[in-house]
Amino acid sequence: MSDDTPRPRDGDGPTRSTIERDPPWMMRTYSGHSTAAASNELYRTNLAKGQTGLSIAFDLPTQTGYDPDDPMARGEVGKVGVPVAHIGHMRTLLHEIPPSETNTSMTINATAAWLLALYVANAEEQGTPAHELRGTTQNDIVKEYLSRGTYIFPPAESRRLIVDMVSWCAHNAPRWNPINVCSYHLQEVGATPVQEIAYAFATAIDVLDAVRCSGQVTEDQFSQVFGSISFFVNAGIRFVEEICKLRAMDAMWAEIGRERYGVTDERALRFRYGVQVNSLGLTEAQPENNVQRIVLEMLAVTLSKDARARSVQLPAWNEALGLPRPWDQQWSLRMQQVLAYESDLLEYDDLFEGSIVIEATTRELREAASAELDEVLEMGGAFESVETLKGRLVTSMAARTRRIESGEQKVVGVNDFVETADSPFDVEGNIMTVDHGVEAQAVEAIAAWRAERDQGAVDAALEELRRATAEGDNVMPASIALAKAGGTTGEWGGAMRDVLGEYRAPTGVSGAAGSVAGLSDVAAHVRSMPGGPPKLLVAKPGLDGHSSGAEQIAVAARDSGMEVVYSGIRLTPEQIAASARDEDPDVIGLSILSGSHLDLVPDVIDLLRSMGVESPVIVGGIIPEVDRRRLLELGVERIYTPKDYELATIMRDIADIAAAHRAI
Amino acid sequence: MSDDTPRPRDGDGPTRSTIERDPPWMMRTYSGHSTAAASNELYRTNLAKGQTGLSIAFDLPTQTGYDPDDPMARGEVGKVGVPVAHIGHMRTLLHEIPPSETNTSMTINATAAWLLALYVANAEEQGTPAHELRGTTQNDIVKEYLSRGTYIFPPAESRRLIVDMVSWCAHNAPRWNPINVCSYHLQEVGATPVQEIAYAFATAIDVLDAVRCSGQVTEDQFSQVFGSISFFVNAGIRFVEEICKLRAMDAMWAEIGRERYGVTDERALRFRYGVQVNSLGLTEAQPENNVQRIVLEMLAVTLSKDARARSVQLPAWNEALGLPRPWDQQWSLRMQQVLAYESDLLEYDDLFEGSIVIEATTRELREAASAELDEVLEMGGAFESVETLKGRLVTSMAARTRRIESGEQKVVGVNDFVETADSPFDVEGNIMTVDHGVEAQAVEAIAAWRAERDQGAVDAALEELRRATAEGDNVMPASIALAKAGGTTGEWGGAMRDVLGEYRAPTGVSGAAGSVAGLSDVAAHVRSMPGGPPKLLVAKPGLDGHSSGAEQIAVAARDSGMEVVYSGIRLTPEQIAASARDEDPDVIGLSILSGSHLDLVPDVIDLLRSMGVESPVIVGGIIPEVDRRRLLELGVERIYTPKDYELATIMRDIADIAAAHRAI
Repeated sequence: MSDDTPRPRDGDGPTRSTIERDPPWMMRTYSGHSTAAASNELYRTNLAKGQTGLSIAFDLPTQTGYDPDDPMARGEVGKVGVPVAHIGHMRTLLHEIPPSETNTSMTINATAAWLLALYVANAEEQGTPAHELRGTTQNDIVKEYLSRGTYIFPPAESRRLIVDMVSWCAHNAPRWNPINVCSYHLQEVGATPVQEIAYAFATAIDVLDAVRCSGQVTEDQFSQVFGSISFFVNAGIRFVEEICKLRAMDAMWAEIGRERYGVTDERALRFRYGVQVNSLGLTEAQPENNVQRIVLEMLAVTLSKDARARSVQLPAWNEALGLPRPWDQQWSLRMQQVLAYESDLLEYDDLFEGSIVIEATTRELREAASAELDEVLEMGGAFESVETLKGRLVTSMAARTRRIESGEQKVVGVNDFVETADSPFDVEGNIMTVDHGVEAQAVEAIAAWRAERDQGAVDAALEELRRATAEGDNVMPASIALAKAGGTTGEWGGAMRDVLGEYRAPTGVSGAAGSVAGLSDVAAHVRSMPGGPPKLLVAKPGLDGHSSGAEQIAVAARDSGMEVVYSGIRLTPEQIAASARDEDPDVIGLSILSGSHLDLVPDVIDLLRSMGVESPVIVGGIIPEVDRRRLLELGVERIYTPKDYELATIMRDIADIAAAHRAI
Repeated sequence: MSDDTPRPRDGDGPTRSTIERDPPWMMRTYSGHSTAAASNELYRTNLAKGQTGLSIAFDLPTQTGYDPDDPMARGEVGKVGVPVAHIGHMRTLLHEIPPSETNTSMTINATAAWLLALYVANAEEQGTPAHELRGTTQNDIVKEYLSRGTYIFPPAESRRLIVDMVSWCAHNAPRWNPINVCSYHLQEVGATPVQEIAYAFATAIDVLDAVRCSGQVTEDQFSQVFGSISFFVNAGIRFVEEICKLRAMDAMWAEIGRERYGVTDERALRFRYGVQVNSLGLTEAQPENNVQRIVLEMLAVTLSKDARARSVQLPAWNEALGLPRPWDQQWSLRMQQVLAYESDLLEYDDLFEGSIVIEATTRELREAASAELDEVLEMGGAFESVETLKGRLVTSMAARTRRIESGEQKVVGVNDFVETADSPFDVEGNIMTVDHGVEAQAVEAIAAWRAERDQGAVDAALEELRRATAEGDNVMPASIALAKAGGTTGEWGGAMRDVLGEYRAPTGVSGAAGSVAGLSDVAAHVRSMPGGPPKLLVAKPGLDGHSSGAEQIAVAARDSGMEVVYSGIRLTPEQIAASARDEDPDVIGLSILSGSHLDLVPDVIDLLRSMGVESPVIVGGIIPEVDRRRLLELGVERIYTPKDYELATIMRDIADIAAAHRAI
């Protein structure tokens, strides 16, 4: 989310200017849902409320290269973001939001080249040439392998697409950030600050090295290329350490630029980053406490003037319950506004310059992160080491889970201070629900779109895209041409899948170190079960790639002595049912965090029963209270939400459910 | 709110201890309402939720020395706090909360000696001697004159009571903080950080000088006496400046101890303080934004390990709407718990030691505050200068109002970012209401109490109290004896009023500098009105002493060219109606912030009409939406709440109301 907001000047005069306040960071809200038209309305409302940049959330089909009518898209259209299948959607999405005046962040990765193509094509239609565009495509595929799950292509092929975008932007859209390297999602799956720094910089170095090798940019352009790399970080509740993390990243990045790439332009050497603060630590229990968590987390990236975020977006207090409403998002924007406009923070130079504690802690973090980074580079870099890094992250997450379970790490309202007065928030309707008609309408509309366009032009553009991709030409020109011809996300994705191939990322489960202390009792129980330890099938139906919950369950089940089958993310209900038929598990565990549980769980259960599989099904995810009842009626045996943090309890439940089922 | 929680040790080893976390500050919730029994239940619930100290809010009759059946108490019993009229109430209030294990803060001032007497008497009944008691009596009467309004006696007589308490505690209750000097309330009426520091220290110095002069303690005891003075500060949204303010106070207080009083004991020199963060800046508009304000304000008093608060109590997000519910108070406690237990703040040494910006800003504040303090001392000290200080505070508050009105000082949701989505908080019932039966029950109960006790013993104890007070003996032994005999708050207050006399504090209005820019249009309009400028009677019925709103209206009306009659706080409806009959105002403005508007406004209107006064009545205060309708039905012409911050608009309204009334 970096941008070219003027960097606050470091004062060499008085410590505080009474006449001048630093300009605030850019304020964004990660949003989008249902349809392009509904999202456009939301964006325009948010901008009217004082939001200063756009942050587009795309739905999972768009992120993974499927059209709304693809069987893989079932249940996911418009759910976690807006569906954008063609240039018509992009026009509607940005209606009355002039591209020449807007700084747009797009959370898009595997299909980033395509969405950038649509953005550029729409801007050109409106008379804004690419070189005027400001914004960011997330485009960090390593963290998709490690955490977020919306990858499509194998590592080398994915890196090639990123290199094409970086190079194309260097020549055509120099104010665009072609990649926004994300340490954010690493923290969400348990990364320590040291891991966050090291893996993000390893990814950036891997991309920069590949750009240099590709020969697509000249040596003269390289300083600008280095300066076009921006970052997207996380900020957790341990905000002092986080302050030091950002200060360490600021110093390390400039050092990498100088020493590895010979960059001397101070402007290009700046560590530019955006932030979404931590969602992992937000709780379903006493959800009002998330407000103070979010506010404290915002400090980490704003207090240091010398390492201040360029843009900040905050989650909503009720994110752990479901989809936030406009008011919930407004509240998160208001948090930033109170800090920026009511407090005096922006009147001062860097508060920590000279601080003994902050400088020493920053130094310690920097040394540890440098060592970890060197190790990754020695292993061949981030793209080469995905499996190793994934195993390390699953291990870190298991350690976090253990600390919370043991009470060593306190979580207010969860493992301590659980008493609560009656809450006015405990009413249904504290979240937004996406209209179920959205998907059907989108399916109809895409057929109409295809019927109206010049199919010959689309076919020709697709052919050229295949050729360019296969022959190693830069993919951007052909992608832009396809966008203009009316091609769709599914068509772009299909062509690229054909040429580049698909990929299944490592789950990290087998490589993870032993996890949960306190499982020994369950393990003893499991060993003694008549008929032997239960067999658990863990599966993630649909396009949702947030696999951390499934992984932790899989690791804990393994460490409890169960037999575990887990094949990773993004399986169709058919694949899951077939696997259950073949593996004959005692219990089937489905994990869904995208909100599509009411679509996918019934599908899986119907298919299981039609194949004669009677194994009990349990479900884990962000399940609103009102949906819980519906799922139980459908025959789901047990439901787990973020409130259920005790893995030992869940493992004991699974053993009991297995025993009860065997007894039938 | 200071206490003897072990002060975090300043590390001379590593910058961060991985094995040791500093103990958190004491966490309190300022609470109490309705009855001693209801408040006791609330306290025990709060302690079960992880609150670590008690903070008792007393109702206005208790604070101003009236029994529940006194005519002055009408409408106020159990409203802003708990009524404690005798030792029976104290027993009930502290039922199952052992005085030997509890650190209790009592927000009590004019009647502090009496409430301490009740606390000591109750503790002794339970076998806990005074020298074991830990806690604080607020007991800062200067800030009552300047801001809060619950004073009774004149300055010199009030100071004598404080000296008696300080001396009595030095001999009998050395772990008790006999006075908690409050800069808190000065900020609430507009004090700048420099004024806050200077006036609080001037008050402390005045008291300490008087204790030394009184001869009640020996020179040997003086170091302990100095160390028994604690402070209660405010922390506003300008949290960087607030951080520096607390660091400046820490350094200045030790310097005062060393240089003025020759204290050398480092422990006694420590600046011990508690906090309630700023209520003035909390808004009725978009009240959810108060959550982030409160969290940011908490930082000012916790981030600096070297100047960290000993205890913190936070207001509730809905304080500007009415009385918080248990859940609202729980949320404020949870804010502290997340910071103390989830964040890593307590793992580090002082974050700002060495900080160039913080150290320079602290130095600047310290120099300015020292100069202001010297000026007050030259004027004869805080007690002598009440009128001057009051005028300066009213001027500061008017400047703040002007900054907000002009937009120079942004208030999110009020003068900027006022757009809002539909809020789930915008429903009635987001506050607690005190049962109207409480007062009638209290009136009956006090009669029963009087009937059951040994009246002869009470009379004798009262006689001894009068004698001791008149002859200059320490008032504490006689007060404790009266408490044990069953005497009441009204009897103690009545006896002391007889001997010491009553006092009316200056309003600060005539001495205030010109206030609101932007009043010139209204002033021109007012000058041109047929019949001359309107006459406005501003009045505060009841015991509520929060006079800042009334003062700002009076100053603005004066500066708009109106004729203003304002006689200060605490008038009976009869006094107000009589004044209206004699003065014949065009408009009568009533200001009530204690929540007793539904009791007092009808009384005033009935009396006005019965005296033939037909002038329109306007009301300002914290008026819940549901009560607004009721007041309008009663004939109130217009109602103003904290949402109405534009004084020019209010002045224009008053002129229009006056014109319309004259036309009838």
